[in-house]
Amino acid sequence: MNKNKLDFINTQDWSIEDLEDILKIAEEVKKSPKKYLHSLEGHSLGLCFFNPSTRTKNSMEVAIGQLGGFAVYNDSESLWMGYKSESIKDTASVLGRYHSALGIRMFPNVVQWEYKASHRQLLEFAKYSRCPVINLEDDMYHPCQAISDVFTIKEKFGNIKNRKFILSWAYHPKPLPLSVPNSTILIMTKFGLDVTLVCPSEYILDDEILQQSYKNAKESGGSFNIIHDLENGYKDSEIIYVKSWCSLKAYGNSKEEKKIRMPYKDKWICNSKLMELTDKNSIFMHCLPVRRNIVVTDDVIDGPHSIVYDQAENRLYINKAILLKIIQN
Amino acid sequence: MNKNKLDFINTQDWSIEDLEDILKIAEEVKKSPKKYLHSLEGHSLGLCFFNPSTRTKNSMEVAIGQLGGFAVYNDSESLWMGYKSESIKDTASVLGRYHSALGIRMFPNVVQWEYKASHRQLLEFAKYSRCPVINLEDDMYHPCQAISDVFTIKEKFGNIKNRKFILSWAYHPKPLPLSVPNSTILIMTKFGLDVTLVCPSEYILDDEILQQSYKNAKESGGSFNIIHDLENGYKDSEIIYVKSWCSLKAYGNSKEEKKIRMPYKDKWICNSKLMELTDKNSIFMHCLPVRRNIVVTDDVIDGPHSIVYDQAENRLYINKAILLKIIQN
Amino acid sequence: MNKNKLDFINTQDWSIEDLEDILKIAEEVKKSPKKYLHSLEGHSLGLCFFNPSTRTKNSMEVAIGQLGGFAVYNDSESLWMGYKSESIKDTASVLGRYHSALGIRMFPNVVQWEYKASHRQLLEFAKYSRCPVINLEDDMYHPCQAISDVFTIKEKFGNIKNRKFILSWAYHPKPLPLSVPNSTILIMTKFGLDVTLVCPSEYILDDEILQQSYKNAKESGGSFNIIHDLENGYKDSEIIYVKSWCSLKAYGNSKEEKKIRMPYKDKWICNSKLMELTDKNSIFMHCLPVRRNIVVTDDVIDGPHSIVYDQAENRLYINKAILLKIIQN
Repeated sequence: MNKNKLDFINTQDWSIEDLEDILKIAEEVKKSPKKYLHSLEGHSLGLCFFNPSTRTKNSMEVAIGQLGGFAVYNDSESLWMGYKSESIKDTASVLGRYHSALGIRMFPNVVQWEYKASHRQLLEFAKYSRCPVINLEDDMYHPCQAISDVFTIKEKFGNIKNRKFILSWAYHPKPLPLSVPNSTILIMTKFGLDVTLVCPSEYILDDEILQQSYKNAKESGGSFNIIHDLENGYKDSEIIYVKSWCSLKAYGNSKEEKKIRMPYKDKWICNSKLMELTDKNSIFMHCLPVRRNIVVTDDVIDGPHSIVYDQAENRLYINKAILLKIIQN
Repeated sequence: MNKNKLDFINTQDWSIEDLEDILKIAEEVKKSPKKYLHSLEGHSLGLCFFNPSTRTKNSMEVAIGQLGGFAVYNDSESLWMGYKSESIKDTASVLGRYHSALGIRMFPNVVQWEYKASHRQLLEFAKYSRCPVINLEDDMYHPCQAISDVFTIKEKFGNIKNRKFILSWAYHPKPLPLSVPNSTILIMTKFGLDVTLVCPSEYILDDEILQQSYKNAKESGGSFNIIHDLENGYKDSEIIYVKSWCSLKAYGNSKEEKKIRMPYKDKWICNSKLMELTDKNSIFMHCLPVRRNIVVTDDVIDGPHSIVYDQAENRLYINKAILLKIIQN
Repeated sequence: MNKNKLDFINTQDWSIEDLEDILKIAEEVKKSPKKYLHSLEGHSLGLCFFNPSTRTKNSMEVAIGQLGGFAVYNDSESLWMGYKSESIKDTASVLGRYHSALGIRMFPNVVQWEYKASHRQLLEFAKYSRCPVINLEDDMYHPCQAISDVFTIKEKFGNIKNRKFILSWAYHPKPLPLSVPNSTILIMTKFGLDVTLVCPSEYILDDEILQQSYKNAKESGGSFNIIHDLENGYKDSEIIYVKSWCSLKAYGNSKEEKKIRMPYKDKWICNSKLMELTDKNSIFMHCLPVRRNIVVTDDVIDGPHSIVYDQAENRLYINKAILLKIIQN
């Protein structure tokens, strides 16, 4: 096995220098796409999507294609692995020999709604793959989204240190994974923003993630706080990142989880009244897809603060940067 | 948004000059494919197929690939849009930023069997996409098939003005969309053929389409007629285009529609007896797939008049021409 | 139709010289991949997978991609053919015009569990396709796997003539196709190995295949034998190829077939005790996917004799060689 291979599974595994390097490459490929049209000629990216995706799939396939390589897409039907008859070791060993990198997407429901179960499978996959593995969202992390969001914030603000960033929970009709909120607070604290998690007490994140965030903030000169009150959370914030996720108090039990969630319906929604409390140059972010007028009102997501389409577009450049960084020519 | 982007949604939106231009480019790429192997390098075509397809999918993916670009295929599972949780605006806004063009296929059943419902969705998609959108068949139009069929007729006959063209309805066990018949009579009248719609009275097309066809014929110097008698329709015709479609009198109500359709079983079928009534140099066309010996007998589709495989093959060259025309380098 | 097109449907149709040529090209592309990065520029491989696949799909898509061409993947949903409404003739005629080669995968269940039914469909497909057709596994043959396995054995042993090769049946919870065992004994006898089929009497292969194997062995200077006793079979063998397949005595009748199979559970499994009976330099092969500890124990498949991942990897180079051989530039 190649011990020097660069898996991209969790931004916590990467040094700030390497992450900064990704941002620099992304900036460069966004500016001069034609320079890189043949950079990864002959290289293939094997995609294993146990769960479907619009943005991650399209931005990844375009990324490798615009670098001169190509993607091979596998949906869960094309894979014998996991819940069918093949061991992760065998699938990963074989695909790791065909491709120059592998991208794996594996939501909680793939294995079972046991927190960390998909993430453990992904780690095992990476262990047996000769080529680097990119986590395209598992049940704990969504690192490509996270680093891409840093890129977008930098693009908007230039200097991002100590910017007032809030991650605000929102009501949503279904229990959603914890990957985006986990990765978001980890990376924002790592890059030294002043991060506030705004959520009902039942929606507090995994303690391990919280502790890492406190540690990140300390090391980076940022800060990390938790607030359970919406108005207080939004007040004077510069970056408003809204997302729904499920409660760890009833993880995998959608009936019980619903009981916890229902009281927040129509209350924990990002609307213009809340946005008025924020800094006048504040930006509204969401990783999409989003249920409009349930998670966020149309006037906010279509309004002057919203940068959600720029945010989605930037995934393309970050994907290119990640591929250029981890695939050895 | 790019107001000058060239969507290809309905041939009626395009001038005859621009359509002629597509035909000219198609001729050129068919003759000299190697000249265009790198024309669209770095460009991607995002395909959103809410309904599956053999010809449209393969001819489109080969077209972009042979021009040096690449396709990203999304089936309905890969899309959150529409009947899942994401708005058309969000999906179209995001995909329109990743790709150089988008191809959308959306049959009636995607939304609901309400005539024009899918077409309206496609128009909304095009409105929010930054890059040009190609209609790969919705519930009203199939413009790529239509312009490709003109290309094929030109290839066979040279001069196509005032050629006797019939579009003949045929029985089929299921109610099929109106997109092909609508687009066929619109384009054939636009190019000045003498067009006759041959169908039972219950299978008359949408009045708006008929009126546009009369107007097209007047402007182009062609003609447009409707005949409800098979033998009379076939008599002396030079181009016999056979297709089944559903009755607007029971649109979306397959039980009621079946009652209308059943009496025509084994009667409204294209057979050699009918073909004997046609001009001796006549050609038989069908867009495929076809139910053999229900819509058309084997001796006709496999016989000397049939050009159905040339017709299918030409979709490739027309697709290339459309891509070259609408993608801005 | 192009009568000189080179279909690759069954290794028996190919001369030993042409098969040796494939091996030579494969060796060359494995050694110098960069030399071939543009060899098939502008060429597309149409893939029709009526059954899903991990290895065959990925190795084929990477193969054409690394030769500068591209694949167009069709799953059974994208095809109207066969059990939907389109005739094989029409699908094959059309796809054969879009692509430079077609790869078809069609297990027994696609048509019906009638032995040879899928193979007959594949032959019909090839008859109507203008471009060459590659059999990516039907209900009788898996020629790409077979020739790839010869490549792997040559790589390990150099001279393969009269090497002691066993194909050993193994218990598996489901009835599996006969394609791999059929193609394996055909090719190994053709290349002059000393081949022994080791299986319970109910798992004897098709008599036609057996007779061809005897004939192959006679012509190549190899040998072909059948043994119903596991220990005797394994003794002193140099290449141990393990695979499960269903009994022809109850083909397509999974209930009856299970009754035949069940007594062999936990007995017909490849384990280290059996491996100890083999030559000390013996190699263990399996085409994967495999049910670990049912077909073969972990200590064997993960042990020093096992070359299963090299075996899987080599499919890539053989695929490239096949494509280079059959696609006319």
